[in-house]
Amino acid sequence: MPQISVRGLEMPESPIRKLAPLATAAKNRGIKVYHLNIGQPDLPTPKVAIDAIRNIDREILEYSPSQGYLGYRKKLVNYYKKYNINVSPDDIIITCGGSEAVLFAFMSCLNPGDEIIVPEPAYANYMAFAISAGAKIRTIATTIDEGFSLPKVEKFEELINDRTRAILICNPNNPTGYLYTRREMNQIRDLVKKYDLYLFSDEVYREYIYTGSPYISACHLEGIEQNVVLIDSVSKRYSECGIRIGALITKNLDVRQAVMKFCQARLSPPLIGQIAAEASLDVPEEYSRSVYDEYVERRKCLIDGLNRIPGVYSPIPMGAFYTVAKLPVDDSEKFCRWCLETFNYEGETVMMAPASGFYTTPGAGYNQVRIAYVLKKEDLIRALFILRKALETYPGRVDEE
Amino acid sequence: MPQISVRGLEMPESPIRKLAPLATAAKNRGIKVYHLNIGQPDLPTPKVAIDAIRNIDREILEYSPSQGYLGYRKKLVNYYKKYNINVSPDDIIITCGGSEAVLFAFMSCLNPGDEIIVPEPAYANYMAFAISAGAKIRTIATTIDEGFSLPKVEKFEELINDRTRAILICNPNNPTGYLYTRREMNQIRDLVKKYDLYLFSDEVYREYIYTGSPYISACHLEGIEQNVVLIDSVSKRYSECGIRIGALITKNLDVRQAVMKFCQARLSPPLIGQIAAEASLDVPEEYSRSVYDEYVERRKCLIDGLNRIPGVYSPIPMGAFYTVAKLPVDDSEKFCRWCLETFNYEGETVMMAPASGFYTTPGAGYNQVRIAYVLKKEDLIRALFILRKALETYPGRVDEE
Repeated sequence: MPQISVRGLEMPESPIRKLAPLATAAKNRGIKVYHLNIGQPDLPTPKVAIDAIRNIDREILEYSPSQGYLGYRKKLVNYYKKYNINVSPDDIIITCGGSEAVLFAFMSCLNPGDEIIVPEPAYANYMAFAISAGAKIRTIATTIDEGFSLPKVEKFEELINDRTRAILICNPNNPTGYLYTRREMNQIRDLVKKYDLYLFSDEVYREYIYTGSPYISACHLEGIEQNVVLIDSVSKRYSECGIRIGALITKNLDVRQAVMKFCQARLSPPLIGQIAAEASLDVPEEYSRSVYDEYVERRKCLIDGLNRIPGVYSPIPMGAFYTVAKLPVDDSEKFCRWCLETFNYEGETVMMAPASGFYTTPGAGYNQVRIAYVLKKEDLIRALFILRKALETYPGRVDEE
Repeated sequence: MPQISVRGLEMPESPIRKLAPLATAAKNRGIKVYHLNIGQPDLPTPKVAIDAIRNIDREILEYSPSQGYLGYRKKLVNYYKKYNINVSPDDIIITCGGSEAVLFAFMSCLNPGDEIIVPEPAYANYMAFAISAGAKIRTIATTIDEGFSLPKVEKFEELINDRTRAILICNPNNPTGYLYTRREMNQIRDLVKKYDLYLFSDEVYREYIYTGSPYISACHLEGIEQNVVLIDSVSKRYSECGIRIGALITKNLDVRQAVMKFCQARLSPPLIGQIAAEASLDVPEEYSRSVYDEYVERRKCLIDGLNRIPGVYSPIPMGAFYTVAKLPVDDSEKFCRWCLETFNYEGETVMMAPASGFYTTPGAGYNQVRIAYVLKKEDLIRALFILRKALETYPGRVDEE
């Protein structure tokens, strides 16, 4: 029997999805599972998007252009303008989710062995896409105790060598909810300019910023226009995770030409997803506002609730809909498994994503979990209660001195 | 400005799509273009699929499982049973088009530098996916004069070395329409077994076989069950190229586990596409029969028509809806460009895919084109007439002695 590839072995399992079989087994035992693990919003997709799908008037579900429909890209230009991001339709390439945008950015910009600096904890799948491209992620530590703010420039420079090709940020951040400040963004800009690096910036959560601080897009940074590759997706913006529509945006023509070759190879992004995504751009203001208000409420509910559980600590996330919280446990993965395999409270349990999967540094985040606040407030309250009960019973509980 | 990657430079442009800007320019000049270049069927998508989309009854367009919906995979089991392919739902992984299935198969099974043997001419995007995975395609020549039949086993063995990891076939073949015989399939089976290779088998055209010869799937070959990875797609079967639903099927658990890590990284295959694809499995028998009958007619019309044009030769394809034809020209790419840029007959022209893009051997196929018969018969007849006129006028005409 032939062997599988080294990269197939090295690919990490998704920390968000790998415990899914345990959750399924728990459900099969009749246990209700509160999903705090996955960033699947429970809020409705805009009606304009569902209607566009229901009203589809085509005889043939044909290929779309490899770059995505021009009509959709034109409308996106206006969307970005609202965020002071000035792009042309040519700068935009529609992808199969933000995932494909990351993969094609890596494939087009990085050679095997090239290094990308990523603040950790980081969205776990970046690691997977780096392995796919043969590139190497070098993480720069941020800590829960410092609220996941960026370390000083010297820490970055310690990592930079002649294989360093890019910095990757997610802003607002998944998994921490951190929002980079203007000072931090300028620091990144200066590094990118000084070492002529790519800056891959995943900004799919720009709608969800809860503080008065401004959203500084990588596209706002002056003097590095040719270095920036913006990663985007409609998944979280419109509760449209399933339609698989993202975008890769760059002013760099060479990068776009390379990316387009990968796009042509996979022929086209999903047709019906593009129809839904384009329609979503006409979503009424009230939709966005009510979604935003809902997350504001949930964030307050979750973070207050977490910090009231003895031994638990969560910083206050400034954006997105996640937080990384510290739990009084020996090993958060063991704890998460135990919640699904062994524990239940009145027939209910919680599923969380062990944070170790968001770190590459061995041991980092061993007692942390990522929690998504994508459940209704009453469910969040109940889930917090069950988490408290679980922590009271868990045999591996460890209280800090 | 940072450099793009070597693989970004090496990626081939799609021979099918790279002339698209010339076609657009021709259309902008008011010229009607008959698209013989692309495998986009003009036949309607089954009504059951469009209806399933129009009747979508969901509030949230959420992620689907990384492996694809179990309900869909269960129904696929019955579909494959009709072709005597016996698989379980667990053996099936739903992908974003057949394209993603090929990419993930390569990523999971091949290390950088590993070699895949592919009979050429071959579907050009295999090259692109191989470059993405850092693998190397070694082509084994088949010729138009021998009707693209497989060379003897010795020719394969000449290419096999310690980096050889796989054989890739497309059956029925894109671009040639060739259908592998039982003898040829047994020859491949023996090679796969002798050298313990993977056999990647792209069988997306199994519905379109026009001779009395049996369809021998790689899954029918005994003794290599752990070596076979089947690539599939609903694109051509149901005129659903735009929904991006394919499948990777294998009995090899190690391969599936590796592929699933790539699947988890990209989260999920398109949701609405799966709904359409699942509904399509209930398509009435008459749909499939009428589509089949239509291609039988068109094939006859196209191949007869081509062989009546002085200097043109096409073998008779046994399956799929393509043929590779030899033209009396100096360079088929120059000719195809000329058809779009310079020529028109009564305001009309034809677009074909230069066959050189389907070969890796330099110079091979220089006077060949791939022609897809996905147009209505009257359009095919008109396109053939225009092709004849173009060949009469083309300044680079070369007649064989």
